[in-house]
Amino acid sequence: MALIVQKYGGTSVGSPERIKNVAKRVSSWQAKGHQVVVVVSAMSGETNRLIALAKEVQAHPDSRELDVIASTGEQVTIGLLSMALMEIGVKARSYTGGQVRILTDSAFTKARIVGIDEGNIKHDLDNGSVVVVAGFQGVDAAGNITTLGRGGSDTSAVAIAAALKADECQIYTDVDGVYTTDPRIVPEARRLETVTFEEMLEMASLGSKVLQIRSVEFAGKYKVKLRVLSSLEELGQEGPGTLITFEEDIKMEQPIISGIAFNRDEAKLTVLGVPDRPGIAYQILGPVAESNIDVDMIIQNVGHDGSTDFSFTVPRGEYAKATAILAQVKGHIGAREITGDNKIAKVSVVGVGMRSHVGIASKMFRTLAEEGINIQMISTSEIKISVVIDEKYLELAVRVLHKAFELDQVPA
Amino acid sequence: MALIVQKYGGTSVGSPERIKNVAKRVSSWQAKGHQVVVVVSAMSGETNRLIALAKEVQAHPDSRELDVIASTGEQVTIGLLSMALMEIGVKARSYTGGQVRILTDSAFTKARIVGIDEGNIKHDLDNGSVVVVAGFQGVDAAGNITTLGRGGSDTSAVAIAAALKADECQIYTDVDGVYTTDPRIVPEARRLETVTFEEMLEMASLGSKVLQIRSVEFAGKYKVKLRVLSSLEELGQEGPGTLITFEEDIKMEQPIISGIAFNRDEAKLTVLGVPDRPGIAYQILGPVAESNIDVDMIIQNVGHDGSTDFSFTVPRGEYAKATAILAQVKGHIGAREITGDNKIAKVSVVGVGMRSHVGIASKMFRTLAEEGINIQMISTSEIKISVVIDEKYLELAVRVLHKAFELDQVPA
Repeated sequence: MALIVQKYGGTSVGSPERIKNVAKRVSSWQAKGHQVVVVVSAMSGETNRLIALAKEVQAHPDSRELDVIASTGEQVTIGLLSMALMEIGVKARSYTGGQVRILTDSAFTKARIVGIDEGNIKHDLDNGSVVVVAGFQGVDAAGNITTLGRGGSDTSAVAIAAALKADECQIYTDVDGVYTTDPRIVPEARRLETVTFEEMLEMASLGSKVLQIRSVEFAGKYKVKLRVLSSLEELGQEGPGTLITFEEDIKMEQPIISGIAFNRDEAKLTVLGVPDRPGIAYQILGPVAESNIDVDMIIQNVGHDGSTDFSFTVPRGEYAKATAILAQVKGHIGAREITGDNKIAKVSVVGVGMRSHVGIASKMFRTLAEEGINIQMISTSEIKISVVIDEKYLELAVRVLHKAFELDQVPA
Repeated sequence: MALIVQKYGGTSVGSPERIKNVAKRVSSWQAKGHQVVVVVSAMSGETNRLIALAKEVQAHPDSRELDVIASTGEQVTIGLLSMALMEIGVKARSYTGGQVRILTDSAFTKARIVGIDEGNIKHDLDNGSVVVVAGFQGVDAAGNITTLGRGGSDTSAVAIAAALKADECQIYTDVDGVYTTDPRIVPEARRLETVTFEEMLEMASLGSKVLQIRSVEFAGKYKVKLRVLSSLEELGQEGPGTLITFEEDIKMEQPIISGIAFNRDEAKLTVLGVPDRPGIAYQILGPVAESNIDVDMIIQNVGHDGSTDFSFTVPRGEYAKATAILAQVKGHIGAREITGDNKIAKVSVVGVGMRSHVGIASKMFRTLAEEGINIQMISTSEIKISVVIDEKYLELAVRVLHKAFELDQVPA
C-alpha cells in the first residue's frame, strides 16, 4: 500500500463529465489498495471568469479581495469531485486550503506555503476516505484566504506530498509524459521514462510547460517523487508517464541530452557601441527592469576600442516597450545605435549528461551550420546550451538537433 | 453615530453595476457618521447555477459537499462589494461565515446559528472599515462549511445585528416597505410605517415574501430593530421603509387590520365520511407528512352519525402526490370518498388589533358574501383570519377586503 497525492488541472476537471472520469481514475488507484489525496484546480475558464468579474468592479483589484474571489473556483471543484466519488461508492471528503490548513505568508495572489497541518488528512485517509483538497490556495496566520498564483495547484500537491511523506506525487495533465521535444514539430519525439529535476527546471523555463517551475523546485527541495501522467488515457491502459528523478538515482547509461526545448515568444534588442565601462549593464537594464519587463538572455562580449555591444532578449509582447525605453536612455549611456528583432526564437539542448561530456556545443553548432542556420546569440549553463536563431528556422533546427542527438532512439 | 447592519439580496448585487450602486448606498450611510456592516447574498442566479452543477455530478448531492459549493456564491459577492467600496475610497474588508466566525450546528444545507464571534468585526469597524460579511453561511465546531438554507442571508444579518447589539438591521429588497397588500392587485395598497413582528410572521407565512420568516422570528427573539427598505430608490431620495416593531411600542391608534395577505400556491384535499374516532387525524396526515409534504390549513368539523369530514391544504405542486397517498390509505381508514381541488386560493386579514376588536370575522365574511364569493374553508389564529376561496375570485376578494377595512386610508 502506498500513499499517493494526485493533482488534476483545470482541463481535467473542466466539466461534470470530466470530473466523473477523474473520480473513476482516483477510484481505480484506491481499489489497488492505495491511500489517495487528490488536489484539484478550478474548472477550466473559471479563474479567468472570476478575475474578469473582479476587474469589472475594480480596475486594479485589491489583492486580498481578489484571493477571496479567485479561491472559490477550486472550492467548487472539491465539492463536485467529492460528490462524484461518493456517487460511485467511494468515501470522500473535501477540504479548502484553510480547512487543511495550508498555512502561507500574507503575500496575496502570490503567497508562499509556510506549513501544512497534515492531521485532518491523515485521519480521513485512515478512515478509508479519499481526501480532496483545493489547490492554489491557503490561509495566512490571521485567517485571511490567500492564493499561490497561477499554476499554484501543482505546488499545493507537492507541498501536501512532502508534508504527508507520500510515496509519489502524480501530476495529471493532457500529455502522457515529458517528451524529448514537442511531438507537433518532431513526430519522432519520444516520451522520457525519467528526467532529472534540474533538466525539468531548464525545460520548464524554456517553454516546455508541462509542470509549474515552482512545484519542480519544491519537489527537488523536499525530495518528493514527482510523476507526470495523462488524465486522458483509457482506464486500464495508462502508460507510466515520466518520473522526475534526482541525479543520484540515474543509471550510468543516462543519455547525454534529454531533450530539445524551444521558445518562440522572444525578441532581441542590441545596444551597439556602448562605452566599455563598469556599470553600463545596469544603466541599460535598470530602466527595463523598473518597467517590469522580464529579461531572459543577456550577452555582452569583450569590448574593443573602448566600446562594446550589449544584447538581451525579452518576451515578444514587451518588445515595443523595451525599444522605447532604450531610445530614451540611448543618449545618456552614450550608445551608437539601438537595433532589435522580434522575429527570433530560442532553441536549447538540455541534459545533465553534458556536465561530463565535451563536444556537445560543437555538435550543436555544426548541426545548425550544416543546415545554413545562422546563430545570433549563444548562452550556456551547466546543463543546457541555448541559441537564438531566426524564427523561420525554428522547426528545422529542432528536428535536426533531435536527430543529431539521437533522441528518437530508446537509450540502451 | 449608530451601528447599522444592512443586508442586500441577490437581485441588489446581481451585476457589477448593481454592486457599485450598493457600494454608493453603503458609503452614504458611513458618510453620515454611522458604522456599517453589510451582509450580502450570492449574485442572483448564482446559487441555482451551483446547485444545478452539483446535481449534474450527483443526483442527490451530499449535503456537506453541497454547502462547500453553494457557499462560494456569497464568497464572490463579498470580495466584489469590498472592491467596489475601496474603488470609491471607502475602507472595506470582507469576511466569509467561517472567518467571522458564525458558528452553527452541523445540519448541512439548513444549519442553525449557535453563536457569533463579534471581535473581528468590531475591530475593523473601530478602524473605520465597512465590514462585508457573506450571508447564508457559517461553520460548525469541526470547521465544516455550513449553509443556513434558502433566504438565510436575512437570518445572518439579524444574528450579526443581535451579536453586535446594532441600532438597526436594514433589509434592502426590491420593494420600499411592507404594504397593506400586493399593489399589483390593489393599486391603492399603502406602505405601512410600522408592522409588528407577529403580523409580519403571519404575513410572511401567508405569502408576502418580503422577509424570510426565520429572520423575523430571530429578530423578535433578540429584540433586533428590523427595517425593510428599497435598494432601488435614488440616493438622497430614499423613503423610510417599514419598521418591524414590538407590540408594546405601538401607538394606541394602531389600525385593527394591518394588511391582506394571500397565497395562490395551494390545493385542498377532503376526506369524506371518516369514522369519528381518536387517532383518525394522524392516520390521514401521518403518511402525508412522511412524504415530506407541507400541510398548511387543517380543518375537521364536528362529526355526526359517527363520521366526519377532514380537509387540509398542501402546496399546489404536491397535490397529485398527496391525492395518491390518500387513495392508498382510503380503505385502511374507512373513508367514504376523497375529493380535492387545486384551483383554490387563500386570503387572510392580519392585524394585532383584532385581539381587542370583535366583528372582524363577520365583516370579512359579509364583504365576501356581497360579492358572491363562496367561502370553502375558514381558519383563524389570534391575529389573522384565513379563508379558502375559488382561485378565480382571488383578486376581487383582496380588493374588496382592502377597501372594506379602509387600508387605503392613512390611519389618523
